[in-house]
Amino acid sequence: MASEFTTTRLIEFADTDMAGIAHFSRFFFFMEQAEHAFFRALGLSIHMERDGELVTWPRASTSCDYANPVRFEEELIVKLTVRCKRTRTLTYGFEFSRGPDHIASGELTTVCCRANPGEPLRAIPIPDYIGALIEAAPGGDGGAGD
Amino acid sequence: MASEFTTTRLIEFADTDMAGIAHFSRFFFFMEQAEHAFFRALGLSIHMERDGELVTWPRASTSCDYANPVRFEEELIVKLTVRCKRTRTLTYGFEFSRGPDHIASGELTTVCCRANPGEPLRAIPIPDYIGALIEAAPGGDGGAGD
Amino acid sequence: MASEFTTTRLIEFADTDMAGIAHFSRFFFFMEQAEHAFFRALGLSIHMERDGELVTWPRASTSCDYANPVRFEEELIVKLTVRCKRTRTLTYGFEFSRGPDHIASGELTTVCCRANPGEPLRAIPIPDYIGALIEAAPGGDGGAGD
Amino acid sequence: MASEFTTTRLIEFADTDMAGIAHFSRFFFFMEQAEHAFFRALGLSIHMERDGELVTWPRASTSCDYANPVRFEEELIVKLTVRCKRTRTLTYGFEFSRGPDHIASGELTTVCCRANPGEPLRAIPIPDYIGALIEAAPGGDGGAGD
Repeated sequence: MASEFTTTRLIEFADTDMAGIAHFSRFFFFMEQAEHAFFRALGLSIHMERDGELVTWPRASTSCDYANPVRFEEELIVKLTVRCKRTRTLTYGFEFSRGPDHIASGELTTVCCRANPGEPLRAIPIPDYIGALIEAAPGGDGGAGD
Repeated sequence: MASEFTTTRLIEFADTDMAGIAHFSRFFFFMEQAEHAFFRALGLSIHMERDGELVTWPRASTSCDYANPVRFEEELIVKLTVRCKRTRTLTYGFEFSRGPDHIASGELTTVCCRANPGEPLRAIPIPDYIGALIEAAPGGDGGAGD
Repeated sequence: MASEFTTTRLIEFADTDMAGIAHFSRFFFFMEQAEHAFFRALGLSIHMERDGELVTWPRASTSCDYANPVRFEEELIVKLTVRCKRTRTLTYGFEFSRGPDHIASGELTTVCCRANPGEPLRAIPIPDYIGALIEAAPGGDGGAGD
Repeated sequence: MASEFTTTRLIEFADTDMAGIAHFSRFFFFMEQAEHAFFRALGLSIHMERDGELVTWPRASTSCDYANPVRFEEELIVKLTVRCKRTRTLTYGFEFSRGPDHIASGELTTVCCRANPGEPLRAIPIPDYIGALIEAAPGGDGGAGD
């Protein structure tokens, strides 16, 4: 059962804006990239079909607090922690750093949904083949609830 | 029959990069926005269903030549001209300017395709309800061919 | 003194992802676009020089809660409200709707900074020529503090 | 002297649009990422200061021809070839493939410029410390000219 994942991300030229730093919106891409890489590391995909059911993870909420800017060609370390695992949702925390420097902290809550073609998107309990591989980190919320 | 369309686009902060100017890739969004606004002005959509057929326009090729940079909060004038209309494709030319200043020139060739769910994407002749509204500008190529 | 501003934003093709809806990160661009349009409506810019001082507004924190998806060519109404005005910061709330439907709610806190070339970015009290035009909405926090 | 460079790029969720494929504009980011990685592999940066001179590479023109779409989590192989090296410009060709499948071909011409703060951007001959490391591929154009 995994509850943590760390990846890195080089700041690209197109991540920057005229203030010379990575645009604040880019951190949401970095969260998403880490989430998807976490799923791949478990042999899963964020958008996968199994047993005739297409499962996807729309976002319920997200946030980011910015402490320091990052610049072109700097390497961002992105640490994902599973903060809460509920019946239908996962909440991740993210710590962004550059070497020893804290850069930003983020959070992302996603909802497990069935996305079969021709049907409306519907929240479902996290399927066992996914839920069996992911757990909340110690101190997180792994209890029941929605 | 329409063969020209002009729109404007304010340069947003997120369009800029650390060089202080609109990133070169943004001009392809500006072309696409003008193409879609052109279709809307004709009562069409670039992604529309009619008579049980979903029609969409994937890109065959595109290019852009850059003469001058544009900056945050400058207004870009985007002039679209239908350069060629063939059986299955449309080619647009784009002139980007800022007041009297020439900024860039672009071109985009799109292919009329049927995109019905569950079927592979397939190039089709431009349907009459679209083709009847669009023609190549004088001097352009309005002849037959693919 | 202004404390509210409303604008609209057509969902572009490039705003969508393979789930067929506007990508969650796009809402942060929509917040930024509304913030900048609010400043322009007051005769200001988010990145302006006056009396030899370049003033800019880096982000301290932001968040978004998603209730319903939006799709290509739908019109999003974006309502900005000044929630808090402190000595050095502004906090905006955002309500996103599509006609009568609530789509999402966001928040953005920005820090007033001096960004003179060759000097480190430094938080400063909001200059009078800006502060005199903006106030917190009734029920918001317009008091002192950082 | 290097004239070729190959890198890979996983297609991210945010690269896709509602047609379920990578948006055509993304290929220009992929070209830029490969160009910058090529410079880094040579110990250079696309935006570097040396001997009191800031050198950067604005774009003169670019193009892309699309043969096949790519989808989420597919791996794109990006092969850069230096097609022309002139006094002040470099032209790269790009071949995009997915395993044995040809996906797209691109081209990008960049201009070597001095970007010292407070001075207008000015095209300059490629400095020796850069030019000594890069050459046009056989069959390319390595001659004189602008």
